[in-house]
This record gives sequence, structure tokens and C-alpha cells, in this order.
Amino acid sequence: MDWKAEDLKVPGFLASGIHCGIKDDKARKDLALLYSRSPAKIAGVFTTNCFKAAPVVLCRERIGSGLGQAVIVNSGNANAATGNEGYRAARAMSRAVSKSLRIKDELVYVASTGVIGNPLPVEKILGGVPRLVDELSETGIYAAEEGIMTTDRFPKIELGKFRIGSTEISICGIAKGAGMIEPNMATLLSFVLTDLETDLESLRKTFRSCIEGSFNSISVDGCMSTNDTALILANGAAANKAAGAAGIKKFRECLSEVLSGLALAMVRDGEGATKVVRITVEDAATRADAKKIAYKIAGSNLVKTAFFGQDPNWGRIISAAGAAGIKLPADSVEVAIGSVPVFRRGRAVRKETDKLLKIMTAASFEVKVKIGMGKACFSMHTSDLTYDYVKLNAHYHT
Amino acid sequence: MDWKAEDLKVPGFLASGIHCGIKDDKARKDLALLYSRSPAKIAGVFTTNCFKAAPVVLCRERIGSGLGQAVIVNSGNANAATGNEGYRAARAMSRAVSKSLRIKDELVYVASTGVIGNPLPVEKILGGVPRLVDELSETGIYAAEEGIMTTDRFPKIELGKFRIGSTEISICGIAKGAGMIEPNMATLLSFVLTDLETDLESLRKTFRSCIEGSFNSISVDGCMSTNDTALILANGAAANKAAGAAGIKKFRECLSEVLSGLALAMVRDGEGATKVVRITVEDAATRADAKKIAYKIAGSNLVKTAFFGQDPNWGRIISAAGAAGIKLPADSVEVAIGSVPVFRRGRAVRKETDKLLKIMTAASFEVKVKIGMGKACFSMHTSDLTYDYVKLNAHYHT
Repeated sequence: MDWKAEDLKVPGFLASGIHCGIKDDKARKDLALLYSRSPAKIAGVFTTNCFKAAPVVLCRERIGSGLGQAVIVNSGNANAATGNEGYRAARAMSRAVSKSLRIKDELVYVASTGVIGNPLPVEKILGGVPRLVDELSETGIYAAEEGIMTTDRFPKIELGKFRIGSTEISICGIAKGAGMIEPNMATLLSFVLTDLETDLESLRKTFRSCIEGSFNSISVDGCMSTNDTALILANGAAANKAAGAAGIKKFRECLSEVLSGLALAMVRDGEGATKVVRITVEDAATRADAKKIAYKIAGSNLVKTAFFGQDPNWGRIISAAGAAGIKLPADSVEVAIGSVPVFRRGRAVRKETDKLLKIMTAASFEVKVKIGMGKACFSMHTSDLTYDYVKLNAHYHT
Repeated sequence: MDWKAEDLKVPGFLASGIHCGIKDDKARKDLALLYSRSPAKIAGVFTTNCFKAAPVVLCRERIGSGLGQAVIVNSGNANAATGNEGYRAARAMSRAVSKSLRIKDELVYVASTGVIGNPLPVEKILGGVPRLVDELSETGIYAAEEGIMTTDRFPKIELGKFRIGSTEISICGIAKGAGMIEPNMATLLSFVLTDLETDLESLRKTFRSCIEGSFNSISVDGCMSTNDTALILANGAAANKAAGAAGIKKFRECLSEVLSGLALAMVRDGEGATKVVRITVEDAATRADAKKIAYKIAGSNLVKTAFFGQDPNWGRIISAAGAAGIKLPADSVEVAIGSVPVFRRGRAVRKETDKLLKIMTAASFEVKVKIGMGKACFSMHTSDLTYDYVKLNAHYHT
């Protein structure tokens, strides 16, 4: 966050955020709108959970067109597991926006985040839409981010810029959550705006590949939400010349940085988290193998509690790696915590206890596991498992 | 545990347990021996973790013969991730026993449980073997169980009896742990003695099938150990007539009850656990599907913290079920907590809050998920995720 709120602008986009009454606290915004002056190309990635929230169902119906102009998002209620009524509510949100903005209804996308299973207070949202539209401004992105936060401890916004020829292009992404930040659900929402002029196919491909290395490379508690939604809108306002392979590469690098920044912020803000740990698996036969092992380590409660306890318990790390369903050559596996090797050739490396303690007391460090099977690798970020995680998730009731 | 220690006998078997010096506290036993007067048929199931402890490697080399006469087990050190030295130590344990008992070395099986990665203090064990053999007795099973416990809060022993014709057959099983009961590893060890006369093939098949419904149907923290070992010895001392299909069925029923009793005791003793929750998935297309969904629910930290918080948060339950990788018909899924339906036709059933609270404050209850895809079902037991789990696993150091 090395920017000021008023710097958060992307040409051709307006945004706003207001309090419409879903949250009890009037000081907290609960409704956000992102709007492009002209129809933009749009790409999206959604939860693969079988129980998809109503707004996810609606977005999936529309995303195939590749066109979008507005995104309305509420926080405080997930509109998930709400049946047909929930779907009608999502449609009503869309219609209120399209009517007020005088755009085609099919160009509006909807997202929700909050408690699962409670009816959406849709009247409050519909009542708020005219004001939400009134407050649209070029510098409204920060307010929009506030509108999608639930119990996030800090806003998550990343701004990136790159050039194609002499044209400067902006990418601004906002996000909320990771894990059960709202104590009743696990939600990741992210919306990215760019003024890049590009073809739809490149937008889709680039977005997907950047998500793989960012949002698909983090874990807080291993629980997949019913509402996960990531959308990118490219409105072409930069009027750059055709990007070409080199331009798309620059776009990918910049977008990657924006999304990775957001993903890392989510882990840092993971419920109860005190540490961000990078898990890297190297020398795997395939990237898929490396990812499977990394996720198994990152998802182990024993590993995560050891991180919290600042305990260099590599026995838990190899035990998790060995249970990932991949036939590891046990004698070739090596584990290092930070720069200190702890396991090699099937047994302990003599511990450099002071050095290890120094590494593990830091707010972030890396665990590296080499498995000696090939050349593929995968890195991801995870948080520790703490008392506060249990507290947040055991003691806030539905 | 509706038996007295002196009732725990199986004809033809002797057992003992002593303190040999691995544990600091002299009042705590750390070495156990099980011995059959004659060579017994033996079947075994071991961890599938790629990092197998040295004693597991040794047992797997020997189990193919189908014959066994003695099992030596130490607690306080897992002899895992200890390299060739660890394997030599396991061999030395075996040799000390075979020499002292004057039996073939190949008939001795070895197991260890405790901290991963520390060299086994094998001299202490070898020094203890003569006394361990001296103390063998028909009523030594309780002492043997004490010898394999680490931080278990209570001993886990089950005794079952059944008849083939007029012959009474006994089955006695002992077990330790589940989850990280010894704070540095996750270990399940179980040893079952029976005087049944049976063929090896029936013994193997029956043991495997009973383990599937017991030890393979529990989860405390989803972490698979490097040392998991379950062995059954059948010495034929009952000299029953050929069991036949009907006899094997009775054997299976009795063995199932013994193993399920042990498995349930492990969940009840899971680290920090305050609750045992039965997760049942019904109306699945296949049993494998039902199991996958049940394990996903049982393994969700959000579900487990909700159990701890006594919160009927079915949103977390369906969210976990929907992320199990099986395409669920979301509108046909039903969830009940105890006898109270909470989710049906894609949305909440009006909550009977008082009734639900009463159910969830109990030490054990059931969550039932019907998925409307077929007729297969699967049940398992899991524990809750509590402050004490984090405490035990974060604050005990290697």
C-alpha cells in the first residue's frame, strides 16, 4: 500500500461505496459499485464449490458474453443457500443498477459476501442503489473496497502500471478476505480494473494464468467458499496500440504483481494469523505434484500449530509431505527452514537451534522441500493456526 | 471398559510391560511385549506414508510369511526419520527378543511410538528385554497397554468373545493414540490377540475389512503418521473346529466391535477434543463418494471449530461437502444435526434453536448429510478443534 486513496484511479472507470443498512454499524460501508463508462471486456473465475451462491450463479450465466460494464457487491450477507428467492434478489440488484445507470442488464455483475443461509435484505440494497450511483467517482475505488470488507483488518488494494509503446496502462485490484474473515463463511472476492485495450481471449488467458500463481496459491484454512468470485474488466480507455506478445507479457507481469500482492495480503489477514509462511516444493516430477505436496504441508494443522509455536518440527513437515499421495523417494527428500537444512538423507541434520529460532520468530519465512524427482516446482503462502483462529470460528455464532 | 485388568486374557498369549528408561518418569512404562506360546498366524496393516519408520519397514519385510510369535513395542521414541541406524536398532530389538525367548528372529515384530527424528536409545531397550521376558504373564495385557501409551489420557483396551460351535473364542485388542497425542507425532498403534484357529487368508481379509470400518473411519486432525501399525495374531489355541462362512461372520462381527471400540476411544482421546461427532453421509452414488464427502466435512477446521463452539453452522457443513470434488445436486442435499433438519432444498430449514443447542452441548452427536444421488452410505467419527489442540501442538517443542 504505497499509494494514496486519491491515486487509485483507472481511466474510464468510476467507483463508489456506501452504507445501505445491511451491517448494523452505520460507520461501516456495505455496498460497492464499479462502473466503466463504456462496455468493457470481462473475464471471471468462480468457486468450484457445488453450493454456489446466487450471485455466482448469475455471474456465470453472463460471463460467457465477455462483456461487462458494472459490478455491484454487498457485504454482510452472502446470499448463499437462499434458494430461488436468493436468485431473484441477485437479479433485482442487477436490475436496479442497470436501470439507474441506463445500461443493459446483462452487463451487470453481482457479488455478495457475509453470512451463509440468511435471506438477503434486498430492499435495503435496492434503496441504496440510487445513492450508490450518485456517488460514483474516479477516486471511488477506496470507498468501494471499504464496501466489500467484512471483518478484514485492513483494506486490500493493489495498483500497477506498465507501458505499451508510449501508452501508460493502469491495473487496480481490490479484494476482501481469506479464510473465514466473516466468521460464518470463507470468501474471497476480488475485482480488477484496467484500461488496457486487448482482445477477450488474451484477457481470459492472462487472468486465469495470473490467478493460478496468486489466489490459487494461498491457503488459510483449506476451506473453499460458496461465493469466491474474481472478475477483471478491461475497458480499453488507454487506446493503446495492439498489445502483441510483448505487450501481453508486460500485462501478465503487472497483473501478476497486483494479484500476488492481494493474495499475500489475504494470508497476512487470515483469521488469527501471526505468520505468513512460504512453502516451496522443488525438484518434483510435475508442477501438479509439487502443488499437491505444498498444499498438503500448508493444510496440516500440525505443521500450522508448529509455525505458531515457532518450533522447527520438520517431522510434521515430512510426515505431511509423505501423506500427499505421491510416491516420494524418502531418502532423497531434503527440508530447509529459511537457510537452515533440517532433514537430509532420511534423517535429521544437526540442528542450528539459535539460527532456526531467529528465522521462525520473524513474521514471515520460507520452508523449502526438495523431493529429488525432477525439475518442477511450486510455491505458495499459508498462515499459522492459532488460538485466535479457534476463538474467531468457535465463538461467533450463527 | 467394562472389564477388570485380570480378566484381560487370551488363551495361549502372554504379555508384559515395563519401564526401561526411555521416558524420564520412572513411574511410566515405555516397553511392551506380546508373546504367543506357539507361532501364530499374523496379519498387518501399516501407514501408507512415504516416510515409514524403521520398525514399519522391518514389519513389512516379515508380514508376508503370515507367521508371528512376538511383538515388541516401545513408546517415547518413534524411531522414525533415523536412517540406517534406526533400522539397525529395530533389528537389534527383534534379536534381543528372539534370543531371550528362543524363537526364530523372523517371528518377531517391532513397533515404536513417540518423537520423530531422535536416535532410538536402543541400549536402554536391549537392557530391558530380559526383565520384559521375565515378567510375561497371562494377565499382562493391561501392563503391555501401559507400555505403549504416550500422552494418552486413558488406556484403550477392548475384549470380545464369540462362539464357534461350543468353543468360546476371545479377541483382545489394545491401542494407543490418535492425532498428535505425543506432541511430536501422530501415531496409531494397535495389536489384537485371538485364540481363533483360522486360515491365513480369512484372517487377512477379515482384519482388513474390519479396519476399514474402524481405524480407517476416524479422523482427529487429518495427519497421517509415519508409524501407524495394526497387527492381529491368531494362535489357534481355542482349537475350534473349522470356522466356515458362519464362523468367520461371527469373527468379523466380534472383531469389528473390538476395533470400533478402540477407534472410538482414540477420537474421544484426540488432542484437546471435547466432543465426538459421528458424520454420516447417505444416499451417495458409491461408498467411496460418501467417504470422500464425510472426510471433507470431518477435516474442515471451520466445521470442527463450530462443533467446539456448539454452533449449528450448517453453512460450513455444506460448504465443505460441496468442495469434496464430487458433483452434488445442490438442491437435493439435506443436512440434519441430531434429529433436527437444518438444510433442505437449497436453503435453511427454520431453526429449532433450543433443540439444536441441547443436541450440540452433549459430548457426542451426529451430523447426517443426505446427498440424493444413490444408495451408498458411510459413517465416521471425528473430534472438535479446540484451544487445547493448538496449545498441545504449538507449545510442546522438539
